Amino acid sequence: MSERVVLAYSGGLDTSVAIGWIAEETGAEVVAVAIDCGQGGEDLDVIRQRALDCGAVEAVVADARDEFAEEYCVPALQANALYMDRYPLVSALSRPLIVKHLAEAARYHNATMVAHGCTGKGNDQVRFEAGLAALYPELRVLAPVRDSGLTRDRAIAFAEERGLPIDVTKKSPYSIDQNLFGRAVETGFLEDIWNGPIEDVYAYTSDPAEQRQPDEVVVTFTAGVPTAVDGKELTPLQVIEEMNRRAGAQGVGRIDMVEDRLVGIKSREVYEAPGAIALIAAHQELENVTVERDLARFKRGVDQRWGELVYDGLWFSPLKNALDGFVTQANEHVTGDVRMVLHGGRAVPTGRRSPASLYDYELATYDTGDTYDQSMARGFIDVWSMPAKIASLRDTRMN
Amino acid sequence: MSERVVLAYSGGLDTSVAIGWIAEETGAEVVAVAIDCGQGGEDLDVIRQRALDCGAVEAVVADARDEFAEEYCVPALQANALYMDRYPLVSALSRPLIVKHLAEAARYHNATMVAHGCTGKGNDQVRFEAGLAALYPELRVLAPVRDSGLTRDRAIAFAEERGLPIDVTKKSPYSIDQNLFGRAVETGFLEDIWNGPIEDVYAYTSDPAEQRQPDEVVVTFTAGVPTAVDGKELTPLQVIEEMNRRAGAQGVGRIDMVEDRLVGIKSREVYEAPGAIALIAAHQELENVTVERDLARFKRGVDQRWGELVYDGLWFSPLKNALDGFVTQANEHVTGDVRMVLHGGRAVPTGRRSPASLYDYELATYDTGDTYDQSMARGFIDVWSMPAKIASLRDTRMN
Amino acid sequence: MSERVVLAYSGGLDTSVAIGWIAEETGAEVVAVAIDCGQGGEDLDVIRQRALDCGAVEAVVADARDEFAEEYCVPALQANALYMDRYPLVSALSRPLIVKHLAEAARYHNATMVAHGCTGKGNDQVRFEAGLAALYPELRVLAPVRDSGLTRDRAIAFAEERGLPIDVTKKSPYSIDQNLFGRAVETGFLEDIWNGPIEDVYAYTSDPAEQRQPDEVVVTFTAGVPTAVDGKELTPLQVIEEMNRRAGAQGVGRIDMVEDRLVGIKSREVYEAPGAIALIAAHQELENVTVERDLARFKRGVDQRWGELVYDGLWFSPLKNALDGFVTQANEHVTGDVRMVLHGGRAVPTGRRSPASLYDYELATYDTGDTYDQSMARGFIDVWSMPAKIASLRDTRMN
Amino acid sequence: MSERVVLAYSGGLDTSVAIGWIAEETGAEVVAVAIDCGQGGEDLDVIRQRALDCGAVEAVVADARDEFAEEYCVPALQANALYMDRYPLVSALSRPLIVKHLAEAARYHNATMVAHGCTGKGNDQVRFEAGLAALYPELRVLAPVRDSGLTRDRAIAFAEERGLPIDVTKKSPYSIDQNLFGRAVETGFLEDIWNGPIEDVYAYTSDPAEQRQPDEVVVTFTAGVPTAVDGKELTPLQVIEEMNRRAGAQGVGRIDMVEDRLVGIKSREVYEAPGAIALIAAHQELENVTVERDLARFKRGVDQRWGELVYDGLWFSPLKNALDGFVTQANEHVTGDVRMVLHGGRAVPTGRRSPASLYDYELATYDTGDTYDQSMARGFIDVWSMPAKIASLRDTRMN
Repeated sequence: MSERVVLAYSGGLDTSVAIGWIAEETGAEVVAVAIDCGQGGEDLDVIRQRALDCGAVEAVVADARDEFAEEYCVPALQANALYMDRYPLVSALSRPLIVKHLAEAARYHNATMVAHGCTGKGNDQVRFEAGLAALYPELRVLAPVRDSGLTRDRAIAFAEERGLPIDVTKKSPYSIDQNLFGRAVETGFLEDIWNGPIEDVYAYTSDPAEQRQPDEVVVTFTAGVPTAVDGKELTPLQVIEEMNRRAGAQGVGRIDMVEDRLVGIKSREVYEAPGAIALIAAHQELENVTVERDLARFKRGVDQRWGELVYDGLWFSPLKNALDGFVTQANEHVTGDVRMVLHGGRAVPTGRRSPASLYDYELATYDTGDTYDQSMARGFIDVWSMPAKIASLRDTRMN
Repeated sequence: MSERVVLAYSGGLDTSVAIGWIAEETGAEVVAVAIDCGQGGEDLDVIRQRALDCGAVEAVVADARDEFAEEYCVPALQANALYMDRYPLVSALSRPLIVKHLAEAARYHNATMVAHGCTGKGNDQVRFEAGLAALYPELRVLAPVRDSGLTRDRAIAFAEERGLPIDVTKKSPYSIDQNLFGRAVETGFLEDIWNGPIEDVYAYTSDPAEQRQPDEVVVTFTAGVPTAVDGKELTPLQVIEEMNRRAGAQGVGRIDMVEDRLVGIKSREVYEAPGAIALIAAHQELENVTVERDLARFKRGVDQRWGELVYDGLWFSPLKNALDGFVTQANEHVTGDVRMVLHGGRAVPTGRRSPASLYDYELATYDTGDTYDQSMARGFIDVWSMPAKIASLRDTRMN
Repeated sequence: MSERVVLAYSGGLDTSVAIGWIAEETGAEVVAVAIDCGQGGEDLDVIRQRALDCGAVEAVVADARDEFAEEYCVPALQANALYMDRYPLVSALSRPLIVKHLAEAARYHNATMVAHGCTGKGNDQVRFEAGLAALYPELRVLAPVRDSGLTRDRAIAFAEERGLPIDVTKKSPYSIDQNLFGRAVETGFLEDIWNGPIEDVYAYTSDPAEQRQPDEVVVTFTAGVPTAVDGKELTPLQVIEEMNRRAGAQGVGRIDMVEDRLVGIKSREVYEAPGAIALIAAHQELENVTVERDLARFKRGVDQRWGELVYDGLWFSPLKNALDGFVTQANEHVTGDVRMVLHGGRAVPTGRRSPASLYDYELATYDTGDTYDQSMARGFIDVWSMPAKIASLRDTRMN
Repeated sequence: MSERVVLAYSGGLDTSVAIGWIAEETGAEVVAVAIDCGQGGEDLDVIRQRALDCGAVEAVVADARDEFAEEYCVPALQANALYMDRYPLVSALSRPLIVKHLAEAARYHNATMVAHGCTGKGNDQVRFEAGLAALYPELRVLAPVRDSGLTRDRAIAFAEERGLPIDVTKKSPYSIDQNLFGRAVETGFLEDIWNGPIEDVYAYTSDPAEQRQPDEVVVTFTAGVPTAVDGKELTPLQVIEEMNRRAGAQGVGRIDMVEDRLVGIKSREVYEAPGAIALIAAHQELENVTVERDLARFKRGVDQRWGELVYDGLWFSPLKNALDGFVTQANEHVTGDVRMVLHGGRAVPTGRRSPASLYDYELATYDTGDTYDQSMARGFIDVWSMPAKIASLRDTRMN
């Protein structure tokens, strides 16, 4: 029996050509695996058929949208995951999901190899290969674009020679990766970092500068999981879709940044993630209400590290697991409602209520009748400032 | 000779009454000290005369706006200081400046005491007293509002009895603290955290929801210090004023949050800080371009701790000093221009250029002819993912 | 019915006098609560009778040694908890245990108050009161030594006047706190930090400088819990006792340091904790073998924060809970044996073996036939060093 | 003119053979560079002559011991640098020094290449190449042992064929790297991590188990730099040498650990670093006396990161530079004397005195007449414990 390769298949030119390319290069049979992470576009059946038409011996397609929402997007939300304080890890979240399905398909189809279509200067190659190293280290990885010269020009030539059922004339100036949680755009003119993005690069969000009526929305969380919008109970997938729609309509979630790639270089990235950005804003504000101060302060560092690890391709790693334990525990009481105004590119919390609130009107109010014992303050300040005071006396003495 | 008290004097009802109140309570002479941190309002001479009219033996006024901009706001900007990722430390920055002037005045006027008008449940009492403990620990602190019953009602009664030249009929529903770097508003109806703020609470910012033309601005930094706007060289004070004006006109910098006070409770705060928020956004993006990845990652933790320390009243402390050393060093190359669009409450960087840029088009481009050696990636990934891979093999073995 | 006070009772002079002192001061009935945390000394029944003889209406005694070992010492071990890298938190661990029993007794006996014998300049007052604030915030706290003038001299006079059954003539120059996990000694001559400790201050450890034969011991851990010594299965309590005995006999675990107290001052402390120090050394080395690198690096920061929180009296706090989740997860695979030599004050791991080991002889060996693919190194180094290299090129360009 | 290679030359078999090997492989001229970092052994002139005899066109030797002590070991001491809490970075400190000299020699001799003798599974290859990437990125790196098959067997054969003046019969079972700051030993039987080290592997330290008289020593620091021993002013080099001698004679500084290598695997390492370990112990204790609490707590994290960076080969990196700024500032007042007992493998501080001490006997003493205001404690505790208390009330309410 021939060896088998499972290929992360998108339906596009590169991976369609890769089916035949890999088969010729290795003599192995190719099993194409296409995963729906909410990227939209073609129907999964169409993609499946194309894989077969391009020479795959098997083509596996899976609607993993709920799984993606629940097991990848929700943990990111609970960690307020924003790489470099900006980017909600859109592509970085979907790669481990795809890896998990690739590993499962490889086991099911007795594959000895796995292939992806990433180049050698991006983060995704690391996310694929580090994930596979953790989940199925025995697989040999093929990366034809990076390692065996499958350039775009050669892909077009290959497709034309073989008469593959792919439209090679469609030529977008944009390189796009998108899923339920957001969308990334790269294109030549944005590689000049002084150039601003143009309206044409966006698809998930309307122009925030256009005039329209504000939209007010109430998001409900239960232990850090979004469970309802405007009082209507929804699955995490539905919440994200709904918030993509409504926040996107108000231009929320556009990001334009220079980013530190794992592979050692800085790159210019343009993203849009309307639902993610709005939901993180709501979640953070609910944390402000329900998470105790010391925990909140420490959690910022944990959240940052969580985001770096996931960005860096280490989703399946011992540190990620242990941070998940912390983050889940910290979200135990992040339950309640946040009311937000979505408008003009902004998602702004304006109200919050929670059965688990740590905000205590009686303690906080400046009205008469508050319950805060102000006489304690003097003692607190005396002890609080003592170390710096003693150090200051020392400094004076020494200088 | 009588003992002397230096009083942090604002010109308002509470501290005007405090002059006589303290004099009667202690038998000491009161030296009023009023500092212009850019809070606007009355002329310093008017404030000075009122202090004298209220019984101060001396009244010191100082225009400290440049000092505030250069020595307090700029370091905050270099640390991207946002307490709880939101609040640019407006009041927390001005208190150590005022403390410094109080300590100087106390030395000059041979005072043995110092007084402030803070209550016992806010952060500012800590900032005053911790700062004074560091700069002039021998001074005894008087806090008549907190410790000796100087309530608002008693202040009004005192002012009327003594015929003090203060208009006690003006009654704002808002408790406001403002300076060059921003403005804080507290008021009764916002103590219900489900209530949203109304337009009336804002003074530094226009309604972001109003339609208007976007404003494009280029901010120039030199080693992390803002030095020009639209190519025109300005002092830090001028930059902040200009950005307050322009970002404020576009509704940038409104903040509505539940906040962890140092004194152990959560409170609802509404801020506006148009210049601060716009400048921090620009500074962060210029850091993205000019600061190396590992340094940038570590700096986030330093920035957070810097903000907590300053919020917590520990401006004059050994840790703050040592963090300043780090932050200054990290800003060494944060030099260049950031172009931003100010519009609809957003301050969005759209372009950046820098002689110290670490972004390298030749490495980053996906065009042919790039200089990145993609063949290195495989080795990198292999080593990068090895610890998690070995752990994963172990986990499989153990389970 | 009278109000009731539960008193943290040690059996010593101060708290014995406090029974009557509090009764007279408050008119309340005193319930004495004495907890055995492994401090040794008198029998619990003797202590119980003394409390009754001194006027307690009830006297509760509890052997909490297993609970202390399992729920307080073991978590500390899993966090390698060493405050300031030295002190294994001996007293800081027992206070929350005592607080838990006090709160239970207060509920059972319908007490409205709780009392402790701490002074106003130590850490233990904070640990008692912060713990009680978390577990039973409605209780009013009495601290007669700190707040109502129960000095040692007045305690002696009180005891003599009332004829209490306490020997007031015993006068130790040492102030001692000890339990299963170690022993703390304070005494006048050590308050001169240039003075070294003398042999007389130690009780848990023999002089490390004396000549004796080394002792070799194998400690077994299961998921970070010590479960056997020299192959013999033991409870955590038994392991700690055994290691106290054997490591103590070799002079292991003496600590002499200047320490940062929570209450803002530095103090000189002398501790001995033979079992704790030996077990932490073994646990750390087993972590070196079984915990993945990134997790191990991050865990050091978590461990430090865990120790600070516990030292600072915040055992019962949301951050402590969330860190516990992390630490437990990180210990999942800390299973195996560590062989140590105990000798001359040192506890030195010399061998380790584990079914969960991440050490791979085949990868690590320099012998021929290793499985490490050295050709990957070049690619790794190229990418690894790229950010610093690009920054260095920039620095050269700028200078 | 021929191209030139600068070679990091040790005088041993591998790098002696590398001279001819590289010359043959590349056609380039080899300039050998040997640096004295205090590793002892042969005279520099002997090494220089051997390089020439083996075919080097130039041989540069430099006594860099003072430079190593002052610019590499002292910063490590100020950062209490212990990788994984144990290893004082011995080899990791010398590599950047050697790199600096290699880069200088390359510039002076117009070399276009640089060569080292490291294998592909250790850390040193990274330290060499990352350092060179920062200091002289244009140089091409040759690593004949790793990349072109220069195994030990082939080196011996090459040496014999060419008649190189090297004794190839000396065959030590140990692979050793040593310098002023310590010594690392690797050997086959230690690759079984259950095996303990034998006395034969040690050279810098006597057996700690042997009976001998304790040695008492006073080390003086000025701003974190060791400047005297027993009152005698010495250079840093002299201090380290003296402490190596005296602490080594007492068996101080042996380390046996499983370590996380940068290249992704765990390895067993045995080190001895008597001076380093004793000096770090002294420095830490002087920090305990002179560094304020918040600064000390944050510095532990900085110290850990500093050690990781240096271990990881990133000495010449922006983050390392910025951390240096912090560490230097934190050491500003680390001035004074620490008295230690050196005995039986332990270096134990027993006394400390400092003009910059933050220890205040008047505040700390339990004697009557202390100046600490205990009445402040109640207010402090009330505010300190409030967040956890409010959270606890919430938890009770929710459960």
